[in-house]
Amino acid sequence: MWPSTEVTKQLKITYPIIQAGMAGGSTTPALVAAVSNAGGLGTLGAGYMTPEEIRLAIRQIRELTDRPFAVNLFMDQPYEASTDQIAQVQHWMKPFRDELGIDVPQTPITKYAENADEQTNVVLEEGVPVFSFTFGCLSKPWAARFREAGTVLIGTATTVREAELLEENGVDMVIAQGSEAGGHRGTFTVSHEQALIGTMALVPQIVDAVRIPVIAAGGIMDGRGILAARMLGASAVSLGTAFLTAEESGIHPAYKEKLLQSKDGETVITSAFSGKPARGLKNRFIAEMAAHQHHVPDYPVQNALTRDIRQAAAKQNRTEFMSMWAGQGAPMSNRLPAEQIMQNLVSQVEKLRKDMLA
Amino acid sequence: MWPSTEVTKQLKITYPIIQAGMAGGSTTPALVAAVSNAGGLGTLGAGYMTPEEIRLAIRQIRELTDRPFAVNLFMDQPYEASTDQIAQVQHWMKPFRDELGIDVPQTPITKYAENADEQTNVVLEEGVPVFSFTFGCLSKPWAARFREAGTVLIGTATTVREAELLEENGVDMVIAQGSEAGGHRGTFTVSHEQALIGTMALVPQIVDAVRIPVIAAGGIMDGRGILAARMLGASAVSLGTAFLTAEESGIHPAYKEKLLQSKDGETVITSAFSGKPARGLKNRFIAEMAAHQHHVPDYPVQNALTRDIRQAAAKQNRTEFMSMWAGQGAPMSNRLPAEQIMQNLVSQVEKLRKDMLA
Repeated sequence: MWPSTEVTKQLKITYPIIQAGMAGGSTTPALVAAVSNAGGLGTLGAGYMTPEEIRLAIRQIRELTDRPFAVNLFMDQPYEASTDQIAQVQHWMKPFRDELGIDVPQTPITKYAENADEQTNVVLEEGVPVFSFTFGCLSKPWAARFREAGTVLIGTATTVREAELLEENGVDMVIAQGSEAGGHRGTFTVSHEQALIGTMALVPQIVDAVRIPVIAAGGIMDGRGILAARMLGASAVSLGTAFLTAEESGIHPAYKEKLLQSKDGETVITSAFSGKPARGLKNRFIAEMAAHQHHVPDYPVQNALTRDIRQAAAKQNRTEFMSMWAGQGAPMSNRLPAEQIMQNLVSQVEKLRKDMLA
Repeated sequence: MWPSTEVTKQLKITYPIIQAGMAGGSTTPALVAAVSNAGGLGTLGAGYMTPEEIRLAIRQIRELTDRPFAVNLFMDQPYEASTDQIAQVQHWMKPFRDELGIDVPQTPITKYAENADEQTNVVLEEGVPVFSFTFGCLSKPWAARFREAGTVLIGTATTVREAELLEENGVDMVIAQGSEAGGHRGTFTVSHEQALIGTMALVPQIVDAVRIPVIAAGGIMDGRGILAARMLGASAVSLGTAFLTAEESGIHPAYKEKLLQSKDGETVITSAFSGKPARGLKNRFIAEMAAHQHHVPDYPVQNALTRDIRQAAAKQNRTEFMSMWAGQGAPMSNRLPAEQIMQNLVSQVEKLRKDMLA
């Protein structure tokens, strides 16, 4: 079995290890290329990037590697946000801005998120070999265009039903995102609470329900997790948190330090930063917004409204106001070059296979 | 490795498979004995049983098997429940009693739970080979007595810190209870929310933190889960939900049917039935008590207060008012004799080992 699986064959990679497409600056071209060069699949988390930024990053990745890589984007979802609701949440967030010494931005935000069609078009135009996405299914016209271009499509499911919908949608493989996973929940059919299913229970249920290969995500940090996921029937794994502390990762140094020093039970799921549930290291912003988190505007409005706070926090090195997305495996993370992380994962799997299957 | 591990050697069993000690009537002597006879470790879930009932059940188990088995009990925890709070919750629960055609019991409840010392003493007196427990550590005098008697002690942890405390407490092995697990959370050091860590992330962190063997629990339903847990570093697995639908299981037939027909995402964690967070199939009682669940009296008071409702619901075959504990793997359950469940688990592991080695 190791390292060849249906996923490695379809993706033309050596090891069934995918670096998750985390948005927000962590997945630098250097990180993506290093993972791909080491035999895995690097992924550009492009959800928050402008079309121009995506195009530039893709070209930078291509200068660093000629191996396959992926770009990950968000599917549009309907959202609601009244001016009253926006005024209310700005009032709740005033104490944070006061502490950071910033005012509510003068010019009201008119564009809450990048245009998903324009972003997607860049992925198609640049001929990216693998396109992964989250928060829903791909529209039929886009699915048809990508299939015609020979792009491998990967959707994200947090329930059996979502995996079935994605299979009907025509994706080539599906990520089963367990409740341990860091960052945004990919849930798109039910409430996020209903879709908080642990990787150990979710993966085999999805494997039994679909015919396409399943990629396990959530809580996987080392060779043990990779082989465990394989035993559950996954054809590959997607690791996010494990690569956040890579030397090439673009996250803030103070956030990286927090990950490396974290203990179990320090992550929490919150909607306070973006309007959409995501798992991250608990801090003051999350704690003090906890009572309001179900009343903040929907994603992407709340995400846009907190941007200046997160940016000021980053400038001032104040982790208490940063969004520090992290999975439940965060305490197992290591600060190493991505190539070394990949080599460790592979050698851990190979040693464990020898020990356990002997 | 398979099937011999540190756990099978210490417990003197053939396969590293433990049937979890679920309280509430599911773990009949027939179930416990069948699992032990098939080479696993059956466990009597005795938390709600009187000392006399425990003694009788132990003797019945011994008539059915001469293999090792375990008894599982609850550790005492401090609790609060004012008369006002009790009156309030009885008011909230009035509509359920009305629907069931029952009144609040005439005589006020004076004994909320069995005496843990008396229960524990029966386990010691009867020379039960394995004593497992949840909700805390064992008191020093009890730990000393069991050690003197040569009893194997198994504690339950939901965080790394709890596993470390149990190791210091002198247990021989520790169950790592992931968030997928059904029934009561074993959490005893932090809020249950903080300790909802998926099996995939929890097991390796506990394995890295303690020197005693770790038993994985939560979401494990078949050979895939067993081998996955072994890859994560667990020396054995504890399966609860997988045995609830065994033919020997003592649960209500309608509850068994609900488990067999359940889908992913249908379980929820609630304190409404017992005053302590537990995972079960969502039903009307849980849904309608959701707003009140954090204001009900502590365990074991609330558990005692809901007893007549649960008993009437059972008599009337009304699953909407039963506590139907279940883990997130419930959709993978099968109705079979326990011996057959054990044989299937073993043959799944053996087949998967062969496939994965190839």
